[in-house]
Amino acid sequence: MSARTSGQVRVVGTGLLGTSIGLGLAAQGVDVALADASPSTLALAVDYGAGRRATDADEPGLVVVAVPPDRTAEVVAAELAAWPGALVTDVASVKATPLQQLRAAGAPVERYLGSHPMAGRERSGPINARADLFLGRPWVITPHERSTAEQAARLEALALDLGATPVRLPAERHDDAVAVVSHAPQLVASLLAARLVDAPAHATDLAGQGLRDTTRIAASDPAMWVQILSANAGRILPVLSDLRDDLDAVLEALAAPDAAGAPRALADLLAAGNAGVQRIPGKHGADLKLASLVVLIDDSPGQLARLLSEIGELGVNLEDLRLEHSPGAPIGIVEVQVAPEAAAGLETDLQQRGWRVAG
Amino acid sequence: MSARTSGQVRVVGTGLLGTSIGLGLAAQGVDVALADASPSTLALAVDYGAGRRATDADEPGLVVVAVPPDRTAEVVAAELAAWPGALVTDVASVKATPLQQLRAAGAPVERYLGSHPMAGRERSGPINARADLFLGRPWVITPHERSTAEQAARLEALALDLGATPVRLPAERHDDAVAVVSHAPQLVASLLAARLVDAPAHATDLAGQGLRDTTRIAASDPAMWVQILSANAGRILPVLSDLRDDLDAVLEALAAPDAAGAPRALADLLAAGNAGVQRIPGKHGADLKLASLVVLIDDSPGQLARLLSEIGELGVNLEDLRLEHSPGAPIGIVEVQVAPEAAAGLETDLQQRGWRVAG
Repeated sequence: MSARTSGQVRVVGTGLLGTSIGLGLAAQGVDVALADASPSTLALAVDYGAGRRATDADEPGLVVVAVPPDRTAEVVAAELAAWPGALVTDVASVKATPLQQLRAAGAPVERYLGSHPMAGRERSGPINARADLFLGRPWVITPHERSTAEQAARLEALALDLGATPVRLPAERHDDAVAVVSHAPQLVASLLAARLVDAPAHATDLAGQGLRDTTRIAASDPAMWVQILSANAGRILPVLSDLRDDLDAVLEALAAPDAAGAPRALADLLAAGNAGVQRIPGKHGADLKLASLVVLIDDSPGQLARLLSEIGELGVNLEDLRLEHSPGAPIGIVEVQVAPEAAAGLETDLQQRGWRVAG
Repeated sequence: MSARTSGQVRVVGTGLLGTSIGLGLAAQGVDVALADASPSTLALAVDYGAGRRATDADEPGLVVVAVPPDRTAEVVAAELAAWPGALVTDVASVKATPLQQLRAAGAPVERYLGSHPMAGRERSGPINARADLFLGRPWVITPHERSTAEQAARLEALALDLGATPVRLPAERHDDAVAVVSHAPQLVASLLAARLVDAPAHATDLAGQGLRDTTRIAASDPAMWVQILSANAGRILPVLSDLRDDLDAVLEALAAPDAAGAPRALADLLAAGNAGVQRIPGKHGADLKLASLVVLIDDSPGQLARLLSEIGELGVNLEDLRLEHSPGAPIGIVEVQVAPEAAAGLETDLQQRGWRVAG
């Protein structure tokens, strides 16, 4: 495999993202020069094979700044000054603020082009880095009025080298988008999960998949999220203000559920929720509707494999799969999602093979 | 398999739950007498094998009322009057209100014992019924001060016959519990998903697994949920009022993210979310910590089966599995969860077999 990216790439900040970028590029023979304010973090990244230590003799053509969001603009400005021939990008998850700060500081923004690889893990630091962290994820590139097509193409080449799918969006539109699809959901999940802190055990013992799914991302790192939320606060605020207006209508309906208009208020919100879910694209980027089959399996090694193996033998491609263990029972419930045209035949075939299946 | 339940069981209401109960009992040779206000719904349930039509000559020992929540008390009262020798239960998802309404109506509550099988589907009606709907799910039984141990044991036998796990809770504690673990999450998911209705396509196109998980249950049926939420409004209200107080603190912090105390307010909420998620029991009812491995597969038939088959060959039991397709790319990311002691060995073994795996 030969990299699209040529020349030296300097990566500043060898945490999870910087080290993962280094690993992915170094594996393809790119000369990656690593820098980090922490000598021990840098040493780890070098040990892991993410590149070599940066030197004063370097001549990077591309600099990737992968430092915490609240330090991004300052480090980008320093890199622009240090390497007058380089294109500088960053990977922060908020994009308008750094650009604004760079402009305010009089930095040469004609050599800065922001980006946001939409990938991450719950765990941070170089020891959790993976060369394949970006595989198949959107990598948003945010051109501004001083950006050139050649610069955007260079960042797209970087994204493609790392297996990501490049997406071009202006910084403001990116930040509006992540406020709705990422930042608001994070806060809402935390708001909901916080209700469990003082819930009695007889309540949490009844938790089902719905509660698990709605609160899963509330397990994310608070320190990192405070920075992200603060940097995009102005765009998250209207989303959550609208949510509070709807919440107030719900609270009013719950306070007097028999009053005229109360059932209607609840029904309207639930219907809006239905409509909102419909807006989320299918797994393959299209509005593909999938059909579900529910299959019961024993909770023993090999059972699920045998099921999926037989689905494969039947020539059916699995579009999605959800596995749920029964609380306290040695039974697994598998929901497989397949193309609608394959569902009926698959149900019959699996039943003939002895599986307990329900459409 | 011989049923614990003996004698005639009369099921009133042959929708999803009533028909599923009938299917499960009839399959074990129990005499199930079915009744429904709708002749066509009843005919369907009989056709599906959920039991026979009820007659005036029946002598049911147990009556299960499975009608919509807002009709439960009225139908239970009628059944108590019609069958003076029978124990009557219901399956409504709110439990204090029916009991209260029956008492207010002077019904013989010493023969009424409420229950709530915590199972359901997005689709309703007898055609979606399944004998295994309750398998491994909690079936809450709500004894009151007139209930006898013998009555509770009869309902537990019914739950066990249908594969459910019986749980005893007073009606008030049940309703408090489901307000937190089921009703509030439903409303919060709808509130969040409603934000997507007017979101631009460039935003929803960036949707990841976090947004999908937090909004999945927002696809549920509004009509049914209006009834459930109305019946438990008084218990959901304080949960969501607390949530609004926290939301107000978040909005204040977002409105002035650089003000003293703002980062702390966000961090406190995110930390509370962390703590709340920790309260949810593990899949097997214990606080089992699992280890995750991420494996990359081609999105083609048989790939996932081959992976799981090899995991089975290695003697490792899969505790959970999450499958994520890459947006626009023919790559699947599989996160497998296994017991912590099995993780390191499995990672090495899979890598040796040529899988692309990251811990």
